[in-house]
Amino acid sequence: LGESALIERIAARIGPAPRGETWSGDDAAVLPFSGRTILYTTDVMVEGVDFDRAYCSGTDVGFKSVAINASDIAAMGGAPRHAVAALSLPPETSVSFVDAMVDGVVEASKRWSIGVAGGDISRAHEVSMAMAMIGAPFGDAVVHRSGAKAGDALCVTGHLGGAGGGLKALSRGIDVTGSAALAGLAARHLRPSARVVEAKRLCELHPTAMIDVSDGLAVDLWHLMDASGTGCDVDPAAVPVDPRLAELADLLSDDTIDPLDLALLGGEDFELLFRIDPDKVGRAQTALAELGCAVTRLGSVTENVSERRIGDHDLEELKEAGWDHLRTG
Amino acid sequence: LGESALIERIAARIGPAPRGETWSGDDAAVLPFSGRTILYTTDVMVEGVDFDRAYCSGTDVGFKSVAINASDIAAMGGAPRHAVAALSLPPETSVSFVDAMVDGVVEASKRWSIGVAGGDISRAHEVSMAMAMIGAPFGDAVVHRSGAKAGDALCVTGHLGGAGGGLKALSRGIDVTGSAALAGLAARHLRPSARVVEAKRLCELHPTAMIDVSDGLAVDLWHLMDASGTGCDVDPAAVPVDPRLAELADLLSDDTIDPLDLALLGGEDFELLFRIDPDKVGRAQTALAELGCAVTRLGSVTENVSERRIGDHDLEELKEAGWDHLRTG
Repeated sequence: LGESALIERIAARIGPAPRGETWSGDDAAVLPFSGRTILYTTDVMVEGVDFDRAYCSGTDVGFKSVAINASDIAAMGGAPRHAVAALSLPPETSVSFVDAMVDGVVEASKRWSIGVAGGDISRAHEVSMAMAMIGAPFGDAVVHRSGAKAGDALCVTGHLGGAGGGLKALSRGIDVTGSAALAGLAARHLRPSARVVEAKRLCELHPTAMIDVSDGLAVDLWHLMDASGTGCDVDPAAVPVDPRLAELADLLSDDTIDPLDLALLGGEDFELLFRIDPDKVGRAQTALAELGCAVTRLGSVTENVSERRIGDHDLEELKEAGWDHLRTG
Repeated sequence: LGESALIERIAARIGPAPRGETWSGDDAAVLPFSGRTILYTTDVMVEGVDFDRAYCSGTDVGFKSVAINASDIAAMGGAPRHAVAALSLPPETSVSFVDAMVDGVVEASKRWSIGVAGGDISRAHEVSMAMAMIGAPFGDAVVHRSGAKAGDALCVTGHLGGAGGGLKALSRGIDVTGSAALAGLAARHLRPSARVVEAKRLCELHPTAMIDVSDGLAVDLWHLMDASGTGCDVDPAAVPVDPRLAELADLLSDDTIDPLDLALLGGEDFELLFRIDPDKVGRAQTALAELGCAVTRLGSVTENVSERRIGDHDLEELKEAGWDHLRTG
């Protein structure tokens, strides 16, 4: 079974959430608490699967662990508040590596005003960090994946494919330090940003649905469409491909680096994919431009559920090619 | 570095909690949220370290993961509410083992009314489950480890040493099924109970401090004394040693199974160790007797910080011999 099939199987075994709560199936769980709402998520990073110590420092791992959880909370329209972390360490792990992981956690948690409230430690064959995070909605309402309707504009923040390109460069041992473009791509993989501030500004414009792009645009777009039973029509020429991927493609001319493929399937860009009233796209672009973040309209939400397309490509087929922890080697 | 030294090092690097919050150093973090309080904890269980698949079923692992987190929340004087779980699986893990883990999580979460609100999956060399749990205080106040004063009675629920004895029996391949006593000890290791209902009743009597006995009485008693700067005088004859350990000691007569040692150092009994006004000990015993749970007075809290003793044994020395994930093999 692949990761997504296994998650569906587990969710079915656990059963549905009671009325008023959201459990699996969104970026974070939504739980009522004392008249307000708690957002709650977890992400685990395992050495050799989610990071490679050949090119990821301890600081990178710690930073990224916070960022990917914070991104999930932001994608629900909320501010991350507190994290707890469970750390598994091989007995031979150096104290300096652990110190570096903690420094990365501290750096990221300061950046997004998150308290690191507790943790646990055990031994394992590889380093892993499982972090859980709670947060609270910016405004009155949570932004689910569902809830959009035909006619909505589909938009995404920033650029896509950079993290996938950075991973390709790093995993092939390319020295990225000599080129600002390559170093920038590498940083997208090693130290992703969580669009917390950007999500807060967007929420003032009431997007109807939102998700973070963690599995690749094709997969996450499919999730967004699936959650509210709509189709979509996306123009591949509109996809904001990270411009730095051109340099990587030139460098690896022997190989088939297609920047658009990386943007659609690379994953881990942690941009916000959202649906909004078409009349508000301009305001979203202006608001986020002040934060140095682009907003690109990719296309539109359509009524036709059987038509979920990026240009000529069917999303269902594209997502099968996407990132899947349990199947990719 | 051992586990506790590493945790202290990490906590120092993260820095102190802001006023009004408790981070590390107690059974769970205490966080203000919307005029109320969230309790927040995490525990990770790793195959080969925290459980052995030779004698722990998937259901055992899932059940215990919920129980040990719920125990931490209960020991703060609160009800566990919602969990998220990060699961790491070797690619060859059978679907039936994963199903069993989930069934164990579901069984335990139903028992203590906990919603399993989300999760994540990755690959690893061994099975591990990192669970985080949030809860809310039963009453107005949280019960910290600190806050007790000289003259308080020191009490513990249930019996001690059973989980350590069960682990010894199982790890030596003893067939426990033929003896109710041995099977009972094994169950203490495999399917620990969280004293959630008992904690709720105790909290009506306002214990001044509480901790769950996860590392062994000696270690957890030391933590409780250290947190509020007091000494203690505990009578070893008063320690409620699990009576079923006698049968195990007989069986392993070639070895040195000392039931009292297991009670002091075995760990994972997940009983509640608490301090209470001496006049209320009888009421605590009556209240918990209705739940089928014994309450034993172990001794008293004293003013003399330099005297933390169980009979002739100094707690500081005893705790050095206690359970430590990173040093025990």
